[in-house]
Amino acid sequence: MVRELKYGMVGGDLKALIGECHRKALGLDPRAKLVCGCFSAVDELNDECAEAYHVDKARVYYDAEKMAEAEAGKIDFVSICTPNFVHYSVAKTFLEHGINVVCEKPLTLKVEEAEELSRLAKEKNLVFAVDYCYSGYVMCKVMKQMIARGDIGEIISVNADYMEGCFLELLSEKEQVNSRIWRTDPKYSGISNTCADDGTHVEHLVHYVTGLKIKRLLATADTFGKKLDLNDNIILEYENGAHGAYWFSQVACGSPNEINLRIYGTKGSLEWHQTRPDEVRFARAGEAAQLLCRAGDGIDVPAGSLARVPFGHPEGYYIAIANIYRNVIDTILKLKNGETPTEEDLDFPDVETGVSGVKFYYAVMESAQNNSKWVDVE
Amino acid sequence: MVRELKYGMVGGDLKALIGECHRKALGLDPRAKLVCGCFSAVDELNDECAEAYHVDKARVYYDAEKMAEAEAGKIDFVSICTPNFVHYSVAKTFLEHGINVVCEKPLTLKVEEAEELSRLAKEKNLVFAVDYCYSGYVMCKVMKQMIARGDIGEIISVNADYMEGCFLELLSEKEQVNSRIWRTDPKYSGISNTCADDGTHVEHLVHYVTGLKIKRLLATADTFGKKLDLNDNIILEYENGAHGAYWFSQVACGSPNEINLRIYGTKGSLEWHQTRPDEVRFARAGEAAQLLCRAGDGIDVPAGSLARVPFGHPEGYYIAIANIYRNVIDTILKLKNGETPTEEDLDFPDVETGVSGVKFYYAVMESAQNNSKWVDVE
Amino acid sequence: MVRELKYGMVGGDLKALIGECHRKALGLDPRAKLVCGCFSAVDELNDECAEAYHVDKARVYYDAEKMAEAEAGKIDFVSICTPNFVHYSVAKTFLEHGINVVCEKPLTLKVEEAEELSRLAKEKNLVFAVDYCYSGYVMCKVMKQMIARGDIGEIISVNADYMEGCFLELLSEKEQVNSRIWRTDPKYSGISNTCADDGTHVEHLVHYVTGLKIKRLLATADTFGKKLDLNDNIILEYENGAHGAYWFSQVACGSPNEINLRIYGTKGSLEWHQTRPDEVRFARAGEAAQLLCRAGDGIDVPAGSLARVPFGHPEGYYIAIANIYRNVIDTILKLKNGETPTEEDLDFPDVETGVSGVKFYYAVMESAQNNSKWVDVE
Amino acid sequence: MVRELKYGMVGGDLKALIGECHRKALGLDPRAKLVCGCFSAVDELNDECAEAYHVDKARVYYDAEKMAEAEAGKIDFVSICTPNFVHYSVAKTFLEHGINVVCEKPLTLKVEEAEELSRLAKEKNLVFAVDYCYSGYVMCKVMKQMIARGDIGEIISVNADYMEGCFLELLSEKEQVNSRIWRTDPKYSGISNTCADDGTHVEHLVHYVTGLKIKRLLATADTFGKKLDLNDNIILEYENGAHGAYWFSQVACGSPNEINLRIYGTKGSLEWHQTRPDEVRFARAGEAAQLLCRAGDGIDVPAGSLARVPFGHPEGYYIAIANIYRNVIDTILKLKNGETPTEEDLDFPDVETGVSGVKFYYAVMESAQNNSKWVDVE
Repeated sequence: MVRELKYGMVGGDLKALIGECHRKALGLDPRAKLVCGCFSAVDELNDECAEAYHVDKARVYYDAEKMAEAEAGKIDFVSICTPNFVHYSVAKTFLEHGINVVCEKPLTLKVEEAEELSRLAKEKNLVFAVDYCYSGYVMCKVMKQMIARGDIGEIISVNADYMEGCFLELLSEKEQVNSRIWRTDPKYSGISNTCADDGTHVEHLVHYVTGLKIKRLLATADTFGKKLDLNDNIILEYENGAHGAYWFSQVACGSPNEINLRIYGTKGSLEWHQTRPDEVRFARAGEAAQLLCRAGDGIDVPAGSLARVPFGHPEGYYIAIANIYRNVIDTILKLKNGETPTEEDLDFPDVETGVSGVKFYYAVMESAQNNSKWVDVE
Repeated sequence: MVRELKYGMVGGDLKALIGECHRKALGLDPRAKLVCGCFSAVDELNDECAEAYHVDKARVYYDAEKMAEAEAGKIDFVSICTPNFVHYSVAKTFLEHGINVVCEKPLTLKVEEAEELSRLAKEKNLVFAVDYCYSGYVMCKVMKQMIARGDIGEIISVNADYMEGCFLELLSEKEQVNSRIWRTDPKYSGISNTCADDGTHVEHLVHYVTGLKIKRLLATADTFGKKLDLNDNIILEYENGAHGAYWFSQVACGSPNEINLRIYGTKGSLEWHQTRPDEVRFARAGEAAQLLCRAGDGIDVPAGSLARVPFGHPEGYYIAIANIYRNVIDTILKLKNGETPTEEDLDFPDVETGVSGVKFYYAVMESAQNNSKWVDVE
Repeated sequence: MVRELKYGMVGGDLKALIGECHRKALGLDPRAKLVCGCFSAVDELNDECAEAYHVDKARVYYDAEKMAEAEAGKIDFVSICTPNFVHYSVAKTFLEHGINVVCEKPLTLKVEEAEELSRLAKEKNLVFAVDYCYSGYVMCKVMKQMIARGDIGEIISVNADYMEGCFLELLSEKEQVNSRIWRTDPKYSGISNTCADDGTHVEHLVHYVTGLKIKRLLATADTFGKKLDLNDNIILEYENGAHGAYWFSQVACGSPNEINLRIYGTKGSLEWHQTRPDEVRFARAGEAAQLLCRAGDGIDVPAGSLARVPFGHPEGYYIAIANIYRNVIDTILKLKNGETPTEEDLDFPDVETGVSGVKFYYAVMESAQNNSKWVDVE
Repeated sequence: MVRELKYGMVGGDLKALIGECHRKALGLDPRAKLVCGCFSAVDELNDECAEAYHVDKARVYYDAEKMAEAEAGKIDFVSICTPNFVHYSVAKTFLEHGINVVCEKPLTLKVEEAEELSRLAKEKNLVFAVDYCYSGYVMCKVMKQMIARGDIGEIISVNADYMEGCFLELLSEKEQVNSRIWRTDPKYSGISNTCADDGTHVEHLVHYVTGLKIKRLLATADTFGKKLDLNDNIILEYENGAHGAYWFSQVACGSPNEINLRIYGTKGSLEWHQTRPDEVRFARAGEAAQLLCRAGDGIDVPAGSLARVPFGHPEGYYIAIANIYRNVIDTILKLKNGETPTEEDLDFPDVETGVSGVKFYYAVMESAQNNSKWVDVE
């Protein structure tokens, strides 16, 4: 029986933020081992990575395609942590070589590209996960199960936002030294910056937690004279008839990557904030609001048991990602061992989630560029 | 020199919520004395009110018009605390008899009515205040002055909501015993419930604090099969080009009359919540966020000195209303004594504010009923 | 039937903080009218007060004893808002003239003085209230009734503090311009500053809410080279055997008159903070913690109905004092009308509470000055 | 140059909480590899561990002494995650075999044992770390450096507590199924339960952050009829003359392993809570309080750069432990490579810290058992 997986990484050099997060999250799982990578396009940096990550230099590549060729059959999955515009080509290559993929979000710069990856993954029967990391928080899973069980009745209103201030300096006269500046360039980010980068997290998270499907939406998108959106307001209509509002901003001074989620139903409500991911405010009609705390008393859905550390000790961001990887690894291991993954194993954002994200930001941009008209979301 | 004002009240019987709030707020000011009233349409209740409020029974009326006639020249202002659909006729009567008016919001059920009151007040040179009480909180005045001074630069995004759950039971099968049920009946509330009742508070408060004027807006309004709106989502475009989003709900389970205000500028941001009105989170670009506390250190705008009780002791809702009345009383006293009210005296929501509120909820309803099209706001 | 009370005030000139708070609190009750006073020892200031407070100048006095003589039989109670060292003589005078008293805390500078006032009040059959204002908050009454009903079982631990930073500047080289500086002078404050001024609030509040009686205590008291205590730590043993810890500080930089109260029982716990007096965190063994909110759902003790304004609208400090006065007024009115006050009417801090407070700070000082030995509290 | 360390673990079977935390924390560091262990005294469980942890079964031992013998020279350090009463003998064995040690706290059940380990570690020139994990949080390091720099002046008061409710059920009639029940048995826990287990964390953390040394202390300790303490109150005098108060409880219903730290100086104050470890409230005299957030703006001490994930994304408990291990690994690697560890490398709780912890809880128990007399702390 296979008990350990080997993985490679594309992207994620020593200065890269998100690659490090993936390696740490995987470091929390003794069942996965980093064995190869194409960490950087710069030779020297690539070598430094190999040393730092304790990877054999013979398995460090300067071209993702060569890596896919050489490692086909030798690794169980690849983690793609490159800038967004490279996701598509790299993911496609690995799929074509029969390698399972975990890819950063947003999945691709074009809807067709995302759909092609989806088609390819199905055709090849490969696992394809997208790192919408926030749905890995235990309390998001708890909310999902509570809602599915009917704890708050039918959902009648949703309000969600993702706010950070990383691009505020673009609006001032300061010289633009922001390391994330490529995100505001259509060459690297396609038609959307903030909505694609942050907004798709919210789109996924609301869907994950509530099960609601978006029917149509309308939007404004503010560029403040730059090329891509930096601040978006969206009103949505879900298939059940309820409305919601999302706000995404990367010019929100002082906002600490807040994701605020407020969900109202006919019988109760749930409120969650990513800055304090271990807490949920749960109000039931006619009762005092409850403070549900990860690993604390009063949580009676199965996801409550996923907590790793005791009541009051924050689990944090790495563990959210690690929770996603745990399920991906469970799934791949079972498949390798001829077993059928359970629904619980498959509880990770898949390629369809990635496709939805791309469609979502396309719909937002279409509305924003057409006087905020309603745009149907498939 | 006149040093005390006499006032009457219309509405505000023993069971009425808002009339009590006005009397308490005025009780905080030794310069105003309740001397007459038309508290209830029921004789017996009216008499009980006279006793409870220590008003001479000879000056209790069963008809507002008779009260206006009889008290013209004897009272300095009237407080109108009736249900919304009566505001117009009562306010008009008192204006016609030359009596200054403080009226509850929303001002009227129709734009033309509000405009007529505005015209009449000007024509008669009378003071006319509208009780948008939340702008009476000291910290709202502090934010207003900070923004006016440029502390957060030019405003680029606004997000605000007013949420309560008072009508949630309408969506369940429970019998409808809610004492506020008349609010959902067009006969008493005109074309809008939630937007008129709660939304206009936000419309005013954002304008008061930021100085922004709404250019146009689009909206959805959910009735859930009832006659009037219970949950509204609005996107706004201000005259400076920035966008904002408002959310008003009276079906938000467990929400304690939250008013959440988040204002983002090119240099900083401000965040305020009515449930904790004495605190403001102030973030300046490149600095740690500050917690400004009423009567605490670090507030250097004049409004900071309006605090009545020491650091850490909450001032609360009555004081917000009392702050509005304090300025109304200052203004009327000065006028009576032949002095000119200062800008500070005049810092209370006036009849034009009332007109704006009515226009606002009309615009919201127009958009909501026309597939969320953009509607210009005058 | 008497339906209105007339009161006088001693202390409370235009610049005084606490007198203003009493007048505002009484302004919230239409049944009490300020008719006379000895507001200041300075003639001119006294006259200004009369004007500002709408009091007949003929009933303004420059000597409390003359006021007591002149107003005996004409007023129903006096509010004593002077500095602490004057409480005893003024209260005594008014009692001797048969006038009910509401007095600021700490009651007196000596235990014997407090006991004499207590004896006198009983002898004369007069109402004597002490303004331990924080027990006037509705949620403190709610906690009291919950504990009395057994909601948290038997109490096993208490932790409470009162912190402010008003005297921090005494520790620096800054010139000492603090308007409260008399508090640190034994001539005006007797043997204790912080413990007498702030600590007695905690001593009362814990007793009020829990019903626990102190058996003995030990303490440290820091003077930092000044004459009186500025920072006190106390460990207490209650009569039921449980221990508690109190911390009082007036050199706690940035602390906003925090009163933090944490009470633990065998079945549950309660947590309250004066900066957010409308909220209580209530945890029951094996359940999620509940957020009880004044006027919100889930409060099922009678005190819950004492809320004056709706869910989410803060009531604040004036209302806490007003709640104490409401009961005092109920009591005096009933007595005047030959009725017997109910237990609910009598729910205000009485002269015995005042005596306990003085004994408490004497015990704390005795322990602190004797190497923190245990001192029995009667 | 050595770039990777090999480690073994004693304790930490599949059901053990703290061993898992150590493995996860070490999993976050690619420079350390688990290669052997004595995870359980039960053969079968030990084998299961080997599989789960991906450790060669040939290097799994059923006796810590045999492990030390066999692995001497083969591993770089051992992590001791056993129950407390085993720490001493196991740590001693590994030291005697020349192996660096990371040990859980409290270090030993007796002062002499701790001192012997300290002597042995020095004699053998070995690295010895004790897992006082909370000082690994970045914001604790930030506070330490701010205080050392003088940001809050000289410290004048400290208030700290550690509260959890894990043993509340011991006080009820419920059957005692608590898995941590051995902690309340002197056979396994020596003279103290709560103070040794939780209190030493606070003792260390306050010392770490403030640099203050305890001169003497007095205490109460509540056993509620059980054999060991479950609720402790302590007053401390530091060598600089300031006083502090600590409260430790394991019967605090609903408390989520709260560690609350409030530190007051002549120029400012700092407040930190382990449930929200990424935030610090920093108040400077005369200024608004600041909310310092890990990885956010306004932190200008070197420790600020230790943040691993972006502003707003919680780092959590594993990372606190990982931060301690990072420094331990830095230190051991440098020593192996003939380099001298820097002060920054050596920033982890060492064996002396462990000795202090044992002395601390002995002093607390001595005072509590002697009518709360002052006990000098060496």
